[in-house]
Amino acid sequence: MDQTVMLGHGSGGSMMKRIIDEVFLAAYPSAELLQGNDAAVLPAPSAGERLAFSTDGFVVSPHFFPGGDIGRLAVCGTVNDVATSGAKPLYLSCGFILEEGFPIDDLKRICQSMADVAKEAGVSLVTGDTKVVNKGHGDGIYITTAGIGLIPEGIDLGGQNIKPGDAVLVSGTLGDHGITVMSCREGLSFKTDLQSDAAPLNHLIADVLSAAPHTRCFRDPTRGGLASTLNEFAQQANVDITIEEDAIPVKDSVRGACEMLGYDVLQVANEGKMVCVVDANEAQVALRAMQANKYGADAAIIGYVSSVQPDRLPKVYLKTSFGGTRILDMLVGEQLPRIC
Amino acid sequence: MDQTVMLGHGSGGSMMKRIIDEVFLAAYPSAELLQGNDAAVLPAPSAGERLAFSTDGFVVSPHFFPGGDIGRLAVCGTVNDVATSGAKPLYLSCGFILEEGFPIDDLKRICQSMADVAKEAGVSLVTGDTKVVNKGHGDGIYITTAGIGLIPEGIDLGGQNIKPGDAVLVSGTLGDHGITVMSCREGLSFKTDLQSDAAPLNHLIADVLSAAPHTRCFRDPTRGGLASTLNEFAQQANVDITIEEDAIPVKDSVRGACEMLGYDVLQVANEGKMVCVVDANEAQVALRAMQANKYGADAAIIGYVSSVQPDRLPKVYLKTSFGGTRILDMLVGEQLPRIC
Repeated sequence: MDQTVMLGHGSGGSMMKRIIDEVFLAAYPSAELLQGNDAAVLPAPSAGERLAFSTDGFVVSPHFFPGGDIGRLAVCGTVNDVATSGAKPLYLSCGFILEEGFPIDDLKRICQSMADVAKEAGVSLVTGDTKVVNKGHGDGIYITTAGIGLIPEGIDLGGQNIKPGDAVLVSGTLGDHGITVMSCREGLSFKTDLQSDAAPLNHLIADVLSAAPHTRCFRDPTRGGLASTLNEFAQQANVDITIEEDAIPVKDSVRGACEMLGYDVLQVANEGKMVCVVDANEAQVALRAMQANKYGADAAIIGYVSSVQPDRLPKVYLKTSFGGTRILDMLVGEQLPRIC
Repeated sequence: MDQTVMLGHGSGGSMMKRIIDEVFLAAYPSAELLQGNDAAVLPAPSAGERLAFSTDGFVVSPHFFPGGDIGRLAVCGTVNDVATSGAKPLYLSCGFILEEGFPIDDLKRICQSMADVAKEAGVSLVTGDTKVVNKGHGDGIYITTAGIGLIPEGIDLGGQNIKPGDAVLVSGTLGDHGITVMSCREGLSFKTDLQSDAAPLNHLIADVLSAAPHTRCFRDPTRGGLASTLNEFAQQANVDITIEEDAIPVKDSVRGACEMLGYDVLQVANEGKMVCVVDANEAQVALRAMQANKYGADAAIIGYVSSVQPDRLPKVYLKTSFGGTRILDMLVGEQLPRIC
């Protein structure tokens, strides 16, 4: 096998066939990929099942970091986006944009990581594409995944469903992914066990939906962090959201790193956390369902939804540890580029 | 609006919201995108309809060329791959990887081009993602699309269905796209009307299927050209395929450019052509259906399928204009990088 990616691996010819056989099919030999047609043909859904469809691109630098790599992110990111609709994620596509010279061993490691986490999530990689760009016109590897899930009849989730009185939950500690990648990249050492939280959350979502049928919506607070997710919700449903700083789970090591570096942890990216809005009557059962899942041990109820104040636009408020209240804005500008 | 793409446009924060609203939603305001959730929720298919799913990445250089641009390619490429399964393509996702500094006006032009050709094809852009990489780590814009189509009951297409005795058709002239992009890039001027053939072929495929119900398969001869597509078919179905050089439609300008530059036109990429294998009894009706479509005027029957010769591997043979026969191999190495 070749040692590095060459332009010919994207040619559509015999070298491309070789990289497909020896790298991609070796890692995830799904029946649909092995069929070798241009489109994967997938079974007919059951009556009434709607489709959920989402895509996510990954350009993280570095490609490997504590707790994961670009491949794990690429599978988890799309699995989680599809799952937020209440769908069971089933099928993934994967488009690679490789830079000439990228080590084949790194590509194999990334594909194995994708295969492992896809198996955990219960999804199949069924179709893919590979392009190769000249040295100097990429950054080793970019991955764009898209995913299809099936939504059972009767499930209808989305930010538009949020109502005043609802409770806001988060499935665990914030900021782990962003601070880990940034530390890696800058060569910082906090002498801690910082690692990315990248994880597939579809099973956690299914657990919550089963326990709390009046769940309004899920969203994963990736780029822009919790602050951006809550502001999106507030605008989408035209409501105010108030959260309590003391209720928000943050690891000491992450809090310390944020203070030292001047980041607001509420704007730092996560890759294995869900924000969930539920009917207040079901907040406790939703919380317990999260906590019973291996990716939700640190879940917490962090706030509530209320009507917009008269003559004001929808806002997100943060009750601080010091007893004050401040407006929590969406991230402005770019905090940590290439975080996912 | 900003003049160029900045890192903040990929932040997940307010700048990203701005580029989504002012560029993407302005070009293709589908109901699903406007909903603003992480996954598009799509209607339930009718009973028995299977899903077709495909993805394709686009890294073409230059981004604009006679007959198209990277946006038109990104929509047509995935529409065509989905349609090869016999599916009606319906939904597209779109992942952008933008380089810091890319002109917003170029991005708008590309998005408008995507919207126009999506409308022609009858597909909706329903979900998307945008990442921004630092200057020097990309090449302006890369696009990865994925597409979903629905396959009616009873349709079963694929290279595995090809049988000895079948006829091989191509929907028009070969090499137009590859030679156009290459000429553009190298600043060559052939004083001709060369232009890319990039086109959505889903309606042409539907026309052929309706006229020739015993169609075995379609495949678009993109990277690697007709030579690679036919070799894939031969291997997939374990058959020999023989084509006649004189029957293959090639524009004089493309033939001339290929001769001058030393390219084999049968290995040059196309973006608006279909290879189709049909039961020989339906070859004429399939041909007439192609020719009646605006993208199939130059369609031709170019060869036939036969059993593999005893003790040989499956091969593709070319009967040359001079009366000889040579083996037509899959492209080896890379001929024209960054062609799509």
